[in-house]
Amino acid sequence: MSSEEKTITCKAAVAWKAGEPLSIENVQVAPPKSHEVRVQVDWSAVCHTDAYTLSGVDPEGAFPIILGHEGAGVVESIGEDVTNVRPGDHVILLYTPECKECKFCRSGKTNLCSKIRETQGRGLMPDGTSRFSIDGKPLLHYMGCSSFSQYTVVADISLVAISHSAPLRSVCLLGCGITTGFGAATHSAKVDAGSTVAVIGAGCVGLAAMQGAIASGASRIIAIDINSEKEAFAKKFGATDFINPTKVDDIVQHITDMTDGGVDYAFDCTGNVNVMLQALQFCHKGWGKLCVIGVAAGGKTLAFRPFLVVTGRQVLGSAFGGVKGRTELPNFVDDYLQGRFKVDEYITHSENLHTINNALDHMHEGKCIRCVVDMSNP
Amino acid sequence: MSSEEKTITCKAAVAWKAGEPLSIENVQVAPPKSHEVRVQVDWSAVCHTDAYTLSGVDPEGAFPIILGHEGAGVVESIGEDVTNVRPGDHVILLYTPECKECKFCRSGKTNLCSKIRETQGRGLMPDGTSRFSIDGKPLLHYMGCSSFSQYTVVADISLVAISHSAPLRSVCLLGCGITTGFGAATHSAKVDAGSTVAVIGAGCVGLAAMQGAIASGASRIIAIDINSEKEAFAKKFGATDFINPTKVDDIVQHITDMTDGGVDYAFDCTGNVNVMLQALQFCHKGWGKLCVIGVAAGGKTLAFRPFLVVTGRQVLGSAFGGVKGRTELPNFVDDYLQGRFKVDEYITHSENLHTINNALDHMHEGKCIRCVVDMSNP
Repeated sequence: MSSEEKTITCKAAVAWKAGEPLSIENVQVAPPKSHEVRVQVDWSAVCHTDAYTLSGVDPEGAFPIILGHEGAGVVESIGEDVTNVRPGDHVILLYTPECKECKFCRSGKTNLCSKIRETQGRGLMPDGTSRFSIDGKPLLHYMGCSSFSQYTVVADISLVAISHSAPLRSVCLLGCGITTGFGAATHSAKVDAGSTVAVIGAGCVGLAAMQGAIASGASRIIAIDINSEKEAFAKKFGATDFINPTKVDDIVQHITDMTDGGVDYAFDCTGNVNVMLQALQFCHKGWGKLCVIGVAAGGKTLAFRPFLVVTGRQVLGSAFGGVKGRTELPNFVDDYLQGRFKVDEYITHSENLHTINNALDHMHEGKCIRCVVDMSNP
Repeated sequence: MSSEEKTITCKAAVAWKAGEPLSIENVQVAPPKSHEVRVQVDWSAVCHTDAYTLSGVDPEGAFPIILGHEGAGVVESIGEDVTNVRPGDHVILLYTPECKECKFCRSGKTNLCSKIRETQGRGLMPDGTSRFSIDGKPLLHYMGCSSFSQYTVVADISLVAISHSAPLRSVCLLGCGITTGFGAATHSAKVDAGSTVAVIGAGCVGLAAMQGAIASGASRIIAIDINSEKEAFAKKFGATDFINPTKVDDIVQHITDMTDGGVDYAFDCTGNVNVMLQALQFCHKGWGKLCVIGVAAGGKTLAFRPFLVVTGRQVLGSAFGGVKGRTELPNFVDDYLQGRFKVDEYITHSENLHTINNALDHMHEGKCIRCVVDMSNP
């Protein structure tokens, strides 16, 4: 099966400059080259990382670019040498690819794949060029996905085919937020049964970390968020306690006291280095693990007295939940279809491509967990 | 068996003030109370932690005090309710006690015991008093051991009986340095077979970390020390490479290049937070673990971009090598007696009680790993 060799013109939300709203444009999407796949994106969710890059604070952000990395759709055409998907396959895009061949993929110790890291970081396809253009002027790709376009081209290692039964509106969320939080608990920190877990930041990733902690048998889950409106969500996802840290004198002492010495696991879903330090401080001496999921702003450092780790605490992190997308996501989807894995519960808002800027606004509201965008309905 | 109810007068090296040499004095050692044991210390080694406290830099240091925590000797008498040792038993003192009853001991996750932590930290026996005095004026205990006295009193959970066949001159080293480094590799970081390991600081603890890495099957061990005289020791203990960081432009780049991306495990045996940061930076993306063993100076913080852990590196620490003294040290001793565990090789110098200040001086020499002090020979 070879590519259709046709450029498609479709609608996409283009980020021309940092700090400006996305602009709906007609974009030309070139056919996929060797080991590339062109995908009709049906649904894309909006994640804080998209907003972070759009804000201009991301030191690696570059423009003009087509953002979006939580996407699901249907394979439209494939380039040469693509063997893992066929046109018509339903797929989830993977900002963390899985080549199954590089040192990282073969290590058995990480889900980070190095094969296309360098070009992906520069907003380009593996051959160093872009498939997006407007009137001949190229636009950058984003995180190997660019799901804010009705059609996108990705590397064949950057997507995974899933069951045709799965509603793409829901499973697009497995492309980042849910998988990131869930896997941080189950894969990266390996929460064990009976443990006490704190999750700081009760957004999509935090709620998914709670879901992962419950799946791992945690007996107590303390949700922490400065927005008290998140309490209802947290409780719905299994939190046994909710604390607004602005309403207690000293969050470290408060958590330490209520847990008889600290938590077994703490998940930072804020990216705030001061919060990370507090979380490490309320980890239990001897074994408490801080798992950093949130992305810190450029230049910020986590600083702590080494005594905290010499006395048994650990600091680790998680990217895409330590999950290998091509190997594991189809199982996540099947678990969802069989009612064993929450996905729909994260969707609080829905927009279409023309109203995608509303989705970015929703994220700053207390009652939004995830907003999905109907890409087929501009 | 009850205590002899007699106060013993013996020689001890007393630290009257920070920054001054130790002074050999006649000290009164009261009989052991309930759950206490009086030990005739035959050999004591000198560790950097003793020197650190004596220097006055240790924020928790208090005076006058009898230092020393790497000691071995013979049980002289026992207090009421002591059941784990008898007079005549050969013992190693344990600055990390093991009560087998507290939350920590029962957790199965740490070797840190909380039972007497608070009083030990204040230089006192568990009942809040001291057994040491000179003319009725009390002296402080140190790390629950005070091995720089010919007789000492310790909690019954702060010592372990070992084989009578073991030379106390050698096995006193298992009370801290060797166990700390060895266990950091085998217990705390759990080095796996075939891995590449960096050890920063090739003193007693660092060499023992190398020994532990070799016991775990590491295939490459890079010793790093600013003192090139340590190269011979490092190679003798199994290092495959030795690097003096003052002789390379950029140690992080140098190690990253020579290891195709970084080391699997790095052990900091320096306590220098800048060195710890470098070590974390040359840990391999995806899985590299930094294990902090060295004690940092008061107030110093390890500061790093959270991105380093989000991309798979981990920061952990180790105290007494994660080893449970009463449960495990007798096996270490047996392994030593059967030639499977290096101990004698660490001893480079020997002094007696009257020349103990020389032992502190030796530590600053490049060719000293451990100096043992014959306490029976004042």
